[in-house]
Amino acid sequence: MPPTITAFERSLDCGKGLARDMRVRWAFEEVGQPYNVRLLSFKAMKEPGHLTLHPFGQIPTYEEGDLTLFESAAIVFQIAEHHAGLLPDNANARARTIAWMFAALATVEPPIVERGMATLLERDKPWYAERLAVLDNQVRVRLGELSRRFGDADWLDRAFSAADLMMVHVLLRLKSSGLLDEYSNVSAYVARGEARPAYKRAFAAQLAVFTAASTS
Amino acid sequence: MPPTITAFERSLDCGKGLARDMRVRWAFEEVGQPYNVRLLSFKAMKEPGHLTLHPFGQIPTYEEGDLTLFESAAIVFQIAEHHAGLLPDNANARARTIAWMFAALATVEPPIVERGMATLLERDKPWYAERLAVLDNQVRVRLGELSRRFGDADWLDRAFSAADLMMVHVLLRLKSSGLLDEYSNVSAYVARGEARPAYKRAFAAQLAVFTAASTS
Repeated sequence: MPPTITAFERSLDCGKGLARDMRVRWAFEEVGQPYNVRLLSFKAMKEPGHLTLHPFGQIPTYEEGDLTLFESAAIVFQIAEHHAGLLPDNANARARTIAWMFAALATVEPPIVERGMATLLERDKPWYAERLAVLDNQVRVRLGELSRRFGDADWLDRAFSAADLMMVHVLLRLKSSGLLDEYSNVSAYVARGEARPAYKRAFAAQLAVFTAASTS
Repeated sequence: MPPTITAFERSLDCGKGLARDMRVRWAFEEVGQPYNVRLLSFKAMKEPGHLTLHPFGQIPTYEEGDLTLFESAAIVFQIAEHHAGLLPDNANARARTIAWMFAALATVEPPIVERGMATLLERDKPWYAERLAVLDNQVRVRLGELSRRFGDADWLDRAFSAADLMMVHVLLRLKSSGLLDEYSNVSAYVARGEARPAYKRAFAAQLAVFTAASTS
């Protein structure tokens, strides 16, 4: 019986693949494992049944036998630990990969999400232009640091790993901002992630959910 | 030869233990392992020598033989994987602990840091009162969710683990805000963390750095 994950019944981004179930779908595709998806309405996400699975009332969750997990990175890590293809065998390389997974979430994602939320919620505020300039620069600091570290490398630490999966997905949220284009090696890195067959299969699967919901 | 970590030469919080080396010091104390500390000025953190260790020019880093790591959570995880006391042996409990580590960083910390940064950088802006109310409520949403999940439990998943270490340290940043006091089981949880002998030893070690820098 394959694991079951949860995803939005109707995605907020019109199927652009920015919801966090995309990370888990992509991981399953990279390691070639089947999975089931249970779709949730925004109302159901905040109801007691789902809150027993996810204390913060979000998606994705992961259920396999007795085990329930939440947090996309933890689910990706669980998949990576149990199937070959997303974590290096060498102990030091594995530890560095985990460090980059945490960096994607704790260091790179927060200013990107903060900027994204401001563009949604503060667009009509009198301070929007001044705040957006600050937020853009916070994002640029991180992109500049990533760009410098990358140089002309293909992936964060030699071979593609769970860290690249997380980092590419975090950076994808910047696509519509134009900020990625200022750092050519970082935008090439994101494009390299999107070009992977496993990414494309995962993207198509989440888009199909959106398309079905829109035409129903 | 014990591992070497980096920390601020002069802490920004006057020795309150909010810098992220505190997490790593606490983890070493929990598992009873010695460590060395190399202190860095703010200038040195952004210089090429340190950037080869930490791509984002921050502290802490971790050096042991051939291995260099960055990101406090990744370093705590490395310590937890190699010494008993911070990760459960049971595979499912271990996976849940990792989920809570990611939750502390990816779900609970961002609104807390965003609020903290606004109190530092936007205090004189005309929009400060309106923004602070929004930020306070974002933090309250997370604290309410944590509080509901906790109930009367002592720790996130039965026994104290690396996840509690991360979560308590993330929440400590709220101490001066008064927000923690609105959730009595969450503030009791934080106090339980601070009462641990290992926390106290780590706290004293980082305070000694600040005291020495202030009197030199």
